[in-house]
Amino acid sequence: MRVLGIDPGLQNMGWGVIEIDGPRLRHIANGTVRSGTGPLGGRLLRLYQGLCAVIVTHAPTVAAVEQTFVNKDAAGTLKLGQARGIALLAPAEAGLEIGEYAPNAVKKAVVGVGHAAKEQVQHMVRHQLPGVCFGGPDAADALAIAICHAHHLQSRAIRIKVRA
Amino acid sequence: MRVLGIDPGLQNMGWGVIEIDGPRLRHIANGTVRSGTGPLGGRLLRLYQGLCAVIVTHAPTVAAVEQTFVNKDAAGTLKLGQARGIALLAPAEAGLEIGEYAPNAVKKAVVGVGHAAKEQVQHMVRHQLPGVCFGGPDAADALAIAICHAHHLQSRAIRIKVRA
Repeated sequence: MRVLGIDPGLQNMGWGVIEIDGPRLRHIANGTVRSGTGPLGGRLLRLYQGLCAVIVTHAPTVAAVEQTFVNKDAAGTLKLGQARGIALLAPAEAGLEIGEYAPNAVKKAVVGVGHAAKEQVQHMVRHQLPGVCFGGPDAADALAIAICHAHHLQSRAIRIKVRA
Repeated sequence: MRVLGIDPGLQNMGWGVIEIDGPRLRHIANGTVRSGTGPLGGRLLRLYQGLCAVIVTHAPTVAAVEQTFVNKDAAGTLKLGQARGIALLAPAEAGLEIGEYAPNAVKKAVVGVGHAAKEQVQHMVRHQLPGVCFGGPDAADALAIAICHAHHLQSRAIRIKVRA
């Protein structure tokens, strides 16, 4: 099973793909789609096309998107919302089920505590995906989101086995 | 020239298409795309597919989207932002130039004052598009946005003529 993690942002949309290999995780690819400059419609289109290309290239089977932090200023929340609409649309159009996780849930799943620093998260992502090179900080966050969803799916699989 | 107006909303996405016929405007079609229930990704996908179908059916040449009012609560702003991302993506993907107008600018263009009541706006939309039937209040708003953009394009055309 392949998990696509997405860290939504209007300027930089981080993405990361990992493979669940039994109890282990394997890094497939990660990167950042940039919206560039110009009219908003064109910027959102570039994010959408970039994410669609990632999905076609790396063929994930499920997706996970970070729940946007809504305590920003209204203009910032609106911008994030617009990017988040695209982050949800691309995998939905590809027929992928989408998990949504709050930033604290991601940190808790990856580091063990909900208020871990960014460096701690990146350290643990490197630990769980040996040899990974991050295509930017948003790509690292996206891998953390994918790991969080993978853990969720693995523990769900174990629960189903125990019940059977 | 055909103008597609869009009033973005996560639950109901209003749309209206009008034709600029010299100094006159003609109603082509209007309606509402509903996102329904279920996971957010699927709801956004329904809005996107609905808008794409409108663009294919009515072949607008330009588009206009209402600027979302950002003084709502953060959760409401985020929802609107997500819908607005879709409202901008669909026309951008079709290669349409997109105008953006604040609600007050739309009211001013249609009624003459920036703080007109909803009923006044609908009355003036009916006056400018004889025989129109609204496919819901969001569709009426979308037609008002299209009229606002049409006025903007008409006055720009006059300015260009005067200069030539």
